[in-house]
Amino acid sequence: MTTVTTRSVAYPADGLTMVGHLALPAGADRRPAVLIGPEGTGLNDFQRGRADALADMGYVAFAFDIHGGRWFTDPEEMMARVMPLLADPDRMREIGHAALDVLRAEPRADPGRIAVIGYGTGGAIGLELGRDGADLRAIGTVNGLTTGRPGEAARIRCPVWAGVGSEDPIMPPAQRDAFAAEILAAGVDWRLVVYGGALHAFHHPPVNQRVRPGVGHHPVHARRAWSDVVGLLDECLPVAK
Amino acid sequence: MTTVTTRSVAYPADGLTMVGHLALPAGADRRPAVLIGPEGTGLNDFQRGRADALADMGYVAFAFDIHGGRWFTDPEEMMARVMPLLADPDRMREIGHAALDVLRAEPRADPGRIAVIGYGTGGAIGLELGRDGADLRAIGTVNGLTTGRPGEAARIRCPVWAGVGSEDPIMPPAQRDAFAAEILAAGVDWRLVVYGGALHAFHHPPVNQRVRPGVGHHPVHARRAWSDVVGLLDECLPVAK
Repeated sequence: MTTVTTRSVAYPADGLTMVGHLALPAGADRRPAVLIGPEGTGLNDFQRGRADALADMGYVAFAFDIHGGRWFTDPEEMMARVMPLLADPDRMREIGHAALDVLRAEPRADPGRIAVIGYGTGGAIGLELGRDGADLRAIGTVNGLTTGRPGEAARIRCPVWAGVGSEDPIMPPAQRDAFAAEILAAGVDWRLVVYGGALHAFHHPPVNQRVRPGVGHHPVHARRAWSDVVGLLDECLPVAK
Repeated sequence: MTTVTTRSVAYPADGLTMVGHLALPAGADRRPAVLIGPEGTGLNDFQRGRADALADMGYVAFAFDIHGGRWFTDPEEMMARVMPLLADPDRMREIGHAALDVLRAEPRADPGRIAVIGYGTGGAIGLELGRDGADLRAIGTVNGLTTGRPGEAARIRCPVWAGVGSEDPIMPPAQRDAFAAEILAAGVDWRLVVYGGALHAFHHPPVNQRVRPGVGHHPVHARRAWSDVVGLLDECLPVAK
């Protein structure tokens, strides 16, 4: 790894004090920048590590918080917070915009070159930023293939890349089809990768928490999904080498 | 481009004299090798160019022939030959094995490191090689998401990567679902990429021929699909750099 500098950033959103993780590449110049949205369980060291990895590639990266510093180990507690959030595009947008504002305020980040990648709930938030017309170069969403309010997908102005496990019961085929139909009708440039045999949250290594049925790690597809996300960034937000 | 050497190779298959296009990278050492299967219209310069591009990356590449040197410009003539072929796994396997034998006989090709990529009918032939238990390191199929005889997919011993246009009426959602169900049940390592808004043969630039309804070029997804196929080879059949 080259020299990556990291720091925690506290900022208000959704009535909470969020604590995100900012990672800066070596150097002093402005760089393309990436927001990283965590799963419904919240921001943890694994997603913080993704910010560090992207910074090592030359991006300014900000892994944002969705729960005011909390990371849920209990699925019921997590669901009690996440389900109302997923049902409220305005709250998701507020959380997303607050994170986007942190990134835009960072002098190392080029505010005209920002992409968002997200996982599950974090992916849904990325999509809502797009549906709100945010100036983004790419939206990548793993396991978060959520539909939005009618007509608003037409405000997405960047390529959308989506990935999902074929056996994900939390993001089932009917939901994938509804998502695809929405963004197709909106004229968005999109792709969907179905990872054969993978469950929900397949990209995430096992952690010390209870998991819901239908959740499971798939190391091979996890590597591929990360490579696919990096490929999306490389296509839409290249780092000058 | 580095120095790539090409030559035509004539060989018998399906009662015809096939004329494939072999491309060799610079050097004299053994290399991983790739079969390239063309669309139902047959082998043309565009697919020959893919062999050259892969040779430039360091692979021995053989773009094989499926119609005894013919390339169809008339859709009805093409369909009259292709439909019975697609309905006959044994004929597809014969055509595939004959091409595989050419590649195995090439001293520059490492017979233990061979992958097949194919487009439409050529993809179907690649899958049939897998279902016949051929020793392959990867199968990539664009627009050829064909199902096989019951139970035979379990003989596929390598990763399968499949790509298709979301709006492809010749490879519609029900066919994709049947394909995915077959390889999932067979325990194969698989992925499926759906390219949003793309039609059949989206990967192929316009050529001087009549095209069927539902066929059309999508330059952006065409680049992505090529990049995805190269990524598959890079994962499963890396060239020592």
